[in-house]
Amino acid sequence: MEQRPLILVTNDDGISAPGVLFLAQIAAGFGDVHVVAPDKPQSGMGHAITINSTIRLSKSNFHPGAVAEYNCSGTPVDCVKMAVNKLLPRKPDLVLSGINHGSNSSINVIYSGTMSAAIEGALESAAAVGFSLCDYGIDADFEPTRAFVQQIIAACLHSQMPKGVCLNVNFPKLKADEMKGLMVCRQAKANWVEEFDERQDPYGRPYYWLTGKFVNFEPDSTDTDEWALKNGYVSVVPIQHDLTAHAQLGFFKQILS
Amino acid sequence: MEQRPLILVTNDDGISAPGVLFLAQIAAGFGDVHVVAPDKPQSGMGHAITINSTIRLSKSNFHPGAVAEYNCSGTPVDCVKMAVNKLLPRKPDLVLSGINHGSNSSINVIYSGTMSAAIEGALESAAAVGFSLCDYGIDADFEPTRAFVQQIIAACLHSQMPKGVCLNVNFPKLKADEMKGLMVCRQAKANWVEEFDERQDPYGRPYYWLTGKFVNFEPDSTDTDEWALKNGYVSVVPIQHDLTAHAQLGFFKQILS
Repeated sequence: MEQRPLILVTNDDGISAPGVLFLAQIAAGFGDVHVVAPDKPQSGMGHAITINSTIRLSKSNFHPGAVAEYNCSGTPVDCVKMAVNKLLPRKPDLVLSGINHGSNSSINVIYSGTMSAAIEGALESAAAVGFSLCDYGIDADFEPTRAFVQQIIAACLHSQMPKGVCLNVNFPKLKADEMKGLMVCRQAKANWVEEFDERQDPYGRPYYWLTGKFVNFEPDSTDTDEWALKNGYVSVVPIQHDLTAHAQLGFFKQILS
Repeated sequence: MEQRPLILVTNDDGISAPGVLFLAQIAAGFGDVHVVAPDKPQSGMGHAITINSTIRLSKSNFHPGAVAEYNCSGTPVDCVKMAVNKLLPRKPDLVLSGINHGSNSSINVIYSGTMSAAIEGALESAAAVGFSLCDYGIDADFEPTRAFVQQIIAACLHSQMPKGVCLNVNFPKLKADEMKGLMVCRQAKANWVEEFDERQDPYGRPYYWLTGKFVNFEPDSTDTDEWALKNGYVSVVPIQHDLTAHAQLGFFKQILS
């Protein structure tokens, strides 16, 4: 008999967030689920790793369907490294990250702890998917995403996935019957226009909160994740970790010779 | 008369690290230098941003050649955002990050605070370069890099740079007359094989340090940054922030339809 798939589940909102509880429960229908996730929220941590301080690990019990479960004091990427190198009985077949409370489409992918965990999974040669729902609320309704999450997990487990590539999946905030289906697409060109909200502490010293406004630089392009989400589709962007701007090698060879 | 270039200098080792002092001093020969850098080491922070806590900012006085200088409690990416949106008189013409104490070649680019600051600069439409020296020592000798740093800054300021692309420049640990020149190349396929050094605290509880060994998966390829560094060249990799695996769009359209 074939071995059941080994599935690592993590996130960046913390091990007890509703999104990861929902995802781990679905994953348990497909294989042996091991949850290794941060012990506190780690949003916006990008691909940070813990090298200047120590990492703690402890067993926890939030996920009834999991074979094993640990919370980790480190970042989402630390969780994947710790799981793969220390905790799992073998290399995982699939790494699932999320479901994030909030969008990770377009340029958000580079700031996202959720997606960095998925990228780290792909680096470890696992199939890997980061899921995000465009709803920041703690009471966000994940139920409409269920059938799509199942479809994507099944496709990843039953296909010969390209090595080193993961998926960035974002769900619009819609009811199940309003979602139009999956759309495989590219990362839209966009950026944040930041403002810093300046306040004064009780001692009269200034401090700042990072805030900002998301701007899509190509709202009329119909092959982007932003277009997909705005038009009721679930966006699916394949993500790589080779950051080389291959098209620009010639230009720089010319100006630096 | 033409305006002097506005140059933002940052790093991830902290505002008083020898590498950033060296870089800011060279940059002052080319334009008005503003230093906005972390108030403490932020190595391995990747593209992390501070959204769950506040950011502090204070003037400092480590860089005699700088027009203005601030240290920031946030990550390297926070420093760039803060500089561009709050501190600088206008958008910078050039963002320089480093010189990092230690390599950021190959896959290290995704974990690197130094490189994430450069990527963030490119996102703000500035020319941007991250510099790293393959020497982790606090007494590392940056002098051999001087002529190359000058050459690259001049090329960036005098060329029409492609928008959204930055450079990942790594210097081998060599004397000036041993360095063979700049080599524009691609990011090598490589990864870390991690181990976690497990120890016990005075109360008998385990904690972990992340350690590991770097493995180059393509040691025989001669067009990579790892090859360049191993053979005495300064590696220069153009870096983009579109993570879409364009070549895989077709595959995923097929398995997810």
